[in-house]
Amino acid sequence: MTDAAPHRVRSEVKAPSHLYLEDFAVGQVYEAGPIPVSADAIKAYAHQFDPQPFHTDAELARSTFFQGLVASGWHTASLTMSLVVQALPIAGGVIGGGVDELRWPKPLRPGDELRLEGEIAEVRPSRTKPNQGLVRVRTTTLNQDGQAVQTMIANLVVPRRPMERA
Amino acid sequence: MTDAAPHRVRSEVKAPSHLYLEDFAVGQVYEAGPIPVSADAIKAYAHQFDPQPFHTDAELARSTFFQGLVASGWHTASLTMSLVVQALPIAGGVIGGGVDELRWPKPLRPGDELRLEGEIAEVRPSRTKPNQGLVRVRTTTLNQDGQAVQTMIANLVVPRRPMERA
Repeated sequence: MTDAAPHRVRSEVKAPSHLYLEDFAVGQVYEAGPIPVSADAIKAYAHQFDPQPFHTDAELARSTFFQGLVASGWHTASLTMSLVVQALPIAGGVIGGGVDELRWPKPLRPGDELRLEGEIAEVRPSRTKPNQGLVRVRTTTLNQDGQAVQTMIANLVVPRRPMERA
Repeated sequence: MTDAAPHRVRSEVKAPSHLYLEDFAVGQVYEAGPIPVSADAIKAYAHQFDPQPFHTDAELARSTFFQGLVASGWHTASLTMSLVVQALPIAGGVIGGGVDELRWPKPLRPGDELRLEGEIAEVRPSRTKPNQGLVRVRTTTLNQDGQAVQTMIANLVVPRRPMERA
């Protein structure tokens, strides 16, 4: 939450990676999406990484905890990363410095469309590396009904803008 | 850390899901793996979820932060989930109750072989739901040289063993 109206940025998928530490400020909001998620995509991810009935088989999923097919939380996290890459065209790429909190308040279900909202929570130059810093971002991954399917607090390693030479 | 020697359990891939809350105790260690990770697998995941040059193109990756092809941290997390499912055959499935910490101390590189060590850190019956509880697990995902490529503190929703009726 900030007093000032947030600086909303909608990034294009193919925008060049141009953001340096100096471009970030607390309260900025970055967005991306929507991306649709099919039952086939949910099952394909699950067969590879999380082969449990509630992620692989709609019929068997009915009698489980989730009462129907749902995406693995790690699939939701992977899709969120694809949105983060779109939303934050950081110079040199989006490089994770660790996640401090990851929650899945509601499951992602087949047919959902996901979009990302990310708010910059902290911007801090490195104490030891003069050419980089840390950006802390809170992300919410929302379905088409505006319900959060994932919330995350992540730290990103971001380069400082190179100084121009005379 | 516990005073008693940890109870080491190596689960078979196809073991039936049989663990209830009552089967867990602080200090138990669960293991799974190894699984090999190829450059093709790293690139295939990245094209879908994290299409950045250091994850998709070994040639371009050389001039990046990582100085070579590395897996997306979310790919490492996804592979870790496949090992967690093997290591912890929980009745009703492995159901995440959120992650409190996720770190990637070293990148996963092509040709690495991953294995999982998970230690039970807390076992707690639910205060509101009499038929379930929470198991907190610290996982370390190791490469073939014993280096940690991921550490995580995760909370799992685990059912209590149904009472036998006379």
